Amino acid sequence: MGPPRRKLIIDTDPGIDDAMAILMAFQSPEVEVIGLTTVFGNVPTPIATTNALYLCALADCPEVPVAEGAWAPLTKSEPTRISDYAHGEDGFGNTHVANPGFVKAEKVDQSACDFLIEKVAQHPGEVTVVALGPLTNLALAVRKDPSFVKNVKELCILGGAFFASGNVNPAAEFNIYSDPDAADIVFTAGMNTRVIGINLTTQVILNDKELTDIKDSGTKYGKYVHDITRFYMYWHVTSDGVDGIFLHDPTCMAAVLDPSLVTYRTGVVRVETQGICAGLTLLDMGLKGWNSSNLWMHQPPIKVGWTVEANRVKELVKNLLTKP
Amino acid sequence: MGPPRRKLIIDTDPGIDDAMAILMAFQSPEVEVIGLTTVFGNVPTPIATTNALYLCALADCPEVPVAEGAWAPLTKSEPTRISDYAHGEDGFGNTHVANPGFVKAEKVDQSACDFLIEKVAQHPGEVTVVALGPLTNLALAVRKDPSFVKNVKELCILGGAFFASGNVNPAAEFNIYSDPDAADIVFTAGMNTRVIGINLTTQVILNDKELTDIKDSGTKYGKYVHDITRFYMYWHVTSDGVDGIFLHDPTCMAAVLDPSLVTYRTGVVRVETQGICAGLTLLDMGLKGWNSSNLWMHQPPIKVGWTVEANRVKELVKNLLTKP
Repeated sequence: MGPPRRKLIIDTDPGIDDAMAILMAFQSPEVEVIGLTTVFGNVPTPIATTNALYLCALADCPEVPVAEGAWAPLTKSEPTRISDYAHGEDGFGNTHVANPGFVKAEKVDQSACDFLIEKVAQHPGEVTVVALGPLTNLALAVRKDPSFVKNVKELCILGGAFFASGNVNPAAEFNIYSDPDAADIVFTAGMNTRVIGINLTTQVILNDKELTDIKDSGTKYGKYVHDITRFYMYWHVTSDGVDGIFLHDPTCMAAVLDPSLVTYRTGVVRVETQGICAGLTLLDMGLKGWNSSNLWMHQPPIKVGWTVEANRVKELVKNLLTKP
Repeated sequence: MGPPRRKLIIDTDPGIDDAMAILMAFQSPEVEVIGLTTVFGNVPTPIATTNALYLCALADCPEVPVAEGAWAPLTKSEPTRISDYAHGEDGFGNTHVANPGFVKAEKVDQSACDFLIEKVAQHPGEVTVVALGPLTNLALAVRKDPSFVKNVKELCILGGAFFASGNVNPAAEFNIYSDPDAADIVFTAGMNTRVIGINLTTQVILNDKELTDIKDSGTKYGKYVHDITRFYMYWHVTSDGVDGIFLHDPTCMAAVLDPSLVTYRTGVVRVETQGICAGLTLLDMGLKGWNSSNLWMHQPPIKVGWTVEANRVKELVKNLLTKP
């Protein structure tokens, strides 16, 4: 017997790159996925739940619980934006593979917020939460039960753009833009937190040849990954002029699986919640003495991804997704 | 006779580094300073006016008109902050040299806004405006008379922090923070505009040895520059841990005098006017196709300083300030 497997909960809005990241976790023997929680973002929450259940079934892990989370950001009655333009109406690039016939399991009878609080309380200091979507569920858990912050081992977030342009607009990255209030609560909650922003993930690009190689591997997920990324690839080419796809969520998962892939800077991150820059993530690394108080002072620091070994991330992604 | 001298109006809140920049202009035969306009910022506007008149007298140019400008930002009744902590109460590092006995000239009987409009109308396409303080006067001119935008040859602004931390707080640079609404108006007005942000100027550091050398040159401004920078130096050491002073305004003036010192990127700059990031300058270089409209679209692009040859800037500053 090796060391105990690290327990993961993945909070997610699958989502094409979410699907890749979730399958990476299922393919990694050193981690144990103890649940998925769902949120709006790439798709509306009910579709995220359907897709999360599909991924558990695809991975032959139908026993992994899926808890459905928030349908809208903290301060609104519906999502600001759903990124179906990138992920397709079904979140899987309009492949419509997650049809009801394939999936037998159902979501659990507990909200994502309560599931998160309960699971980390059952395993205090043992659960890593990987947050791949808007941070609404996490903010609700932080607000509802102070034990959540204490009990989480680590939170690894895909979100934000640090000293870099956003992807929803020049100011904001999609996950943070989708619920800036929630993100500000989570970043300042005092958890052991790492954030992987699109300043890193846009350096990690999988091209069409590599995706074809994944399909041609003939392994369990090869064809699925290739099929769902067709739509996503087309969007990247037209929107970013990139000949490939950005591995946003897979880079975050890679950073969880192999901490040596990313270096970090430590500092306080606040999120703009108003104005034209709503959703902007702003890091203060504490390099300067300020002449007056500001809202970054006296907040707990977190770790912000600073450099990434893009080729090593890609190798890990490809190895896991083509593993038998 | 050489080529005609380029006409400059300097909008300024002197201010220690403003004083250095203004003296650089007076020392440059290729430019003709046709006026100074004053604004709040490093000091309240009346002190800025006194100091501008002092600098004209010191440079033996008492005939250069000084027009007093706004006392407060567009949307407020008084300045948000005066940076006397860096520049001293008198703006000259508490040297109190600008006493009434020295200065004979008086400010002109015209507001900075009207002076700017009138002067550029007298010389359409010939006047470069160098803006070293908050952009209130410029915004007032843009709003009051559409001919101003058409008639200005070029606007060169010291302000903002592009993909970098601010200096008032982690989000904002002082000049833009002091009137974000004005800055947003000016950046999007459609003028031929260059901006030099603190992402460049904090790379240009004059140390104590170099300032002593300026004094020991025994030239016209040597002692004055050395004396006013004592207070400023102390502030830099305590606030930024820098063994020297940032040449903010002198770098902007150097970029006007020698365009080869700075490279630029072109894009649309908007300013956040609300929230915790009020005063943040955000550049969209147009590298990404957006999926929905945003407030950077359909705005005129400007040039944003991207790299600076710091040592060459310092040589120019030292040469001009020690020239007989």
